[in-house]
Amino acid sequence: MKAEALVTDLYQLTMGKGYTDHNKTEEIASFDLFSRKNPFGGEYMISAGLDKVVEFIKSIKFTDSDIEYLRTLNIFDEDYLESLRNFKFTGDVWAVPDGTIIGPNQPMLKVRAPLVQAQLLETRLINLMGYPTLTATNASRLVTAAQGRLVFEFGTRRAPLKSAAVEGAKYAIMGGVDGTSCVQVGKEYGVNIVGTMAHSWIESFDTEYEAFKAYAESFPDSCVLLVDTYDTLKSGVPNAIRVAKEVLEPMGKKVKGIRLDSGDLAYLSKKARKMLNDAGMKETMIMASNGLNAITIQDLIAQGAQIDAFGVGEKLINNKEDAVLSVVYKLMQIEKDGKIIPKIKLSENAAKTTIPGSKSIYRFYDKETGMALGDVMALDDEVIPTDKYTLVDPIHTYKQKELTNYNVKSLHVKVFENGEQVYEVPSLEESKKHAADELASLYVEHKRLKNPAKYYRDLSLPLLNFQKEMIEKKQNAIKTLVKKAK
Amino acid sequence: MKAEALVTDLYQLTMGKGYTDHNKTEEIASFDLFSRKNPFGGEYMISAGLDKVVEFIKSIKFTDSDIEYLRTLNIFDEDYLESLRNFKFTGDVWAVPDGTIIGPNQPMLKVRAPLVQAQLLETRLINLMGYPTLTATNASRLVTAAQGRLVFEFGTRRAPLKSAAVEGAKYAIMGGVDGTSCVQVGKEYGVNIVGTMAHSWIESFDTEYEAFKAYAESFPDSCVLLVDTYDTLKSGVPNAIRVAKEVLEPMGKKVKGIRLDSGDLAYLSKKARKMLNDAGMKETMIMASNGLNAITIQDLIAQGAQIDAFGVGEKLINNKEDAVLSVVYKLMQIEKDGKIIPKIKLSENAAKTTIPGSKSIYRFYDKETGMALGDVMALDDEVIPTDKYTLVDPIHTYKQKELTNYNVKSLHVKVFENGEQVYEVPSLEESKKHAADELASLYVEHKRLKNPAKYYRDLSLPLLNFQKEMIEKKQNAIKTLVKKAK
Repeated sequence: MKAEALVTDLYQLTMGKGYTDHNKTEEIASFDLFSRKNPFGGEYMISAGLDKVVEFIKSIKFTDSDIEYLRTLNIFDEDYLESLRNFKFTGDVWAVPDGTIIGPNQPMLKVRAPLVQAQLLETRLINLMGYPTLTATNASRLVTAAQGRLVFEFGTRRAPLKSAAVEGAKYAIMGGVDGTSCVQVGKEYGVNIVGTMAHSWIESFDTEYEAFKAYAESFPDSCVLLVDTYDTLKSGVPNAIRVAKEVLEPMGKKVKGIRLDSGDLAYLSKKARKMLNDAGMKETMIMASNGLNAITIQDLIAQGAQIDAFGVGEKLINNKEDAVLSVVYKLMQIEKDGKIIPKIKLSENAAKTTIPGSKSIYRFYDKETGMALGDVMALDDEVIPTDKYTLVDPIHTYKQKELTNYNVKSLHVKVFENGEQVYEVPSLEESKKHAADELASLYVEHKRLKNPAKYYRDLSLPLLNFQKEMIEKKQNAIKTLVKKAK
Repeated sequence: MKAEALVTDLYQLTMGKGYTDHNKTEEIASFDLFSRKNPFGGEYMISAGLDKVVEFIKSIKFTDSDIEYLRTLNIFDEDYLESLRNFKFTGDVWAVPDGTIIGPNQPMLKVRAPLVQAQLLETRLINLMGYPTLTATNASRLVTAAQGRLVFEFGTRRAPLKSAAVEGAKYAIMGGVDGTSCVQVGKEYGVNIVGTMAHSWIESFDTEYEAFKAYAESFPDSCVLLVDTYDTLKSGVPNAIRVAKEVLEPMGKKVKGIRLDSGDLAYLSKKARKMLNDAGMKETMIMASNGLNAITIQDLIAQGAQIDAFGVGEKLINNKEDAVLSVVYKLMQIEKDGKIIPKIKLSENAAKTTIPGSKSIYRFYDKETGMALGDVMALDDEVIPTDKYTLVDPIHTYKQKELTNYNVKSLHVKVFENGEQVYEVPSLEESKKHAADELASLYVEHKRLKNPAKYYRDLSLPLLNFQKEMIEKKQNAIKTLVKKAK
């Protein structure tokens, strides 16, 4: 990742100039980056994208040609352009590690930095965390649905251009899938890549049998045959069996698998399984693809489909069912002349009213089982007791849950301190393992694909009261304004 | 765009080796790239992405490190790796220019090249045309909905990572929107960029009035104020009016606009318009954003919303309502030893059965009005009469429409010939103009956002009959296979 400072909204740069004009460059701002809801009707997200965020913050730079372009807009003065040319991030960043389970309104990332700097990062930080988190979460749902069967990412062609094709596949793997068809991802991240043949392979030969035979000869050890070009059960599977008998068995090899890519996958897989078994090919895997998503995979398994591996394309890499994660980056407080001024944004839409102040998230784990019991978001200076804690529902405050016998863990790690990276970004493999561990600590009821049980994600009482106070204060200020106007 | 040959599915490379092993490197294949359906429930697509396709085909290269990585997979022999290292495209490509209106099953791009080459391009060609076409089409629908009002692309933060943020905004502009918030797009493509302030700007000041005043001082000529941070009608709009009177008017300047970003945009815009007009600020524009799409824009206008400019984020850059275009790349014929062998793929799903042969698309225009009357896809060697033509519905062949008094135009241009680029890619501005002209030639009934009138896109009778013959031939071959097996 190089430069790329202009991959941002113009308003970040106009605000930057405005802040500079109005002597606000010394003010220290704290922003929270979080999603407003869980995607796909689920009850959690797998946070992802921090790997690229670290690269971005380290490398952000306005190049000479960037400055030259900005000058042509005729809205920025030379002093401000010069300050952009010298831009370097000098603040602090905290984040949850990639692979961490997180929920709505819980900051995945927190920035504390001089106002202009913190502001200028906004657009790209959201861009770098939203899609990755959505994709890793989607992947984890596919893996849950597949109940131990293999899941592969097949979406390169369907991805929204290159970054999503390559990085999207990586985050899918972080979320739990077993491999990808994208060769570049294998090269860059050392992951398992898979793939065999397209329909065009079959069609390019005079007959399906000749096509299968040729493929078996070229790849006797990894021979997966696509059987639906002409007629799956009448032509494809019989030809695969014939190739096994006539080509591979004489070489001491087997057909590794067949792939179904159309038709009713439950029906066809059961029929194909029987045909393969009857031919003594019990070890030949059945792989299926074609518009799969988590719900379809779950349904297919419920219907007794004999599928060993699922290939998922557009509904993973494009997150087709819920194509956008509503990540926002909101100002929480300003430090000015040594004083902390908490900030809040009210909204007609109550869910969009922000939670002010600088906050931490704590997760409670059952001491016996290690299972997650709930989270609480608290003001940074609160001390979370280690023996007994009462979770309070932020809306229906009469709903409370008393916790005892727990371990408690703070979710954020410090990533940058005074602009210096102080966190080593884990490898993809480590983050994938972290995501798997996180998912294992979540009760299955919370992982249900639709209508999951609610996981406790509460605000501490001091934080709840603090938010209420701030809302009242702002509303009073508005009332005063209205009175004045009359 | 550099190298990037590995941004592809592994199976392209395995097939490449298989073709090489089986002496198929001399065979010339023809592939069609097309979408199976129109997105968003509409009746057309704006083809886009050819600009990057040309760059890709010219620059595709397996680097030394690519080859080294492929070697580690232990499935490719050295001869094949060497052939990849020397890969250069030597074939022919035809395409419709970016901005052309196109429909389902109509090839946006056609490749005729040695089989291995044509195959190796597949994944990236689909990747480079699907999202751009979807996004340009989406943009054109927003512009239709806005009925002459301005539409801006605001989705940088919501885009699936960098390529979509930058290229997506470009294709949105090609499809008709008036500008983008993404600075990089302004720099790279010289387009109009827009933007003013976020809620954090307002919050960073003690009061909304101070925030507005400061902004007006920094940007007296482009002062658009975000009025919904605390309370749109009670605080935001009154403060905007006060800034106009107290700060800008004394400087001889005006508030250029206000922006609404939450609440009921129809109601708020009407109220705000009245307040502004009552204050003598008739020229102050009202801009609106917040989860807008084409349908919402149409509804707002129907409800008398007083909005002059719409900002569209995630529902444009992510195409949230229809997040994937089902573009495919299908083998149509093989030339071998001087003989043409047409190819077809059957499918349980009739819509997935391909149309064999090398084909052209012709569009008929009314000689008087210049309006598009319908398209016909024909085999390349067919001659389309210039005086009278009968369009025949491909499924319900009794449905026919006789055309006279028309001009007829072939839609494809030749882009590469023997591997050499023979087409100059138009500028973004030219392609945007082309898209606008194309849309202007389409009757409004076809541009209706939902339930549009069907536009004739038929197959010529020779092509229809050719497809039928091919289907029968393949089905007979399967019957013979089944008989043999018994």
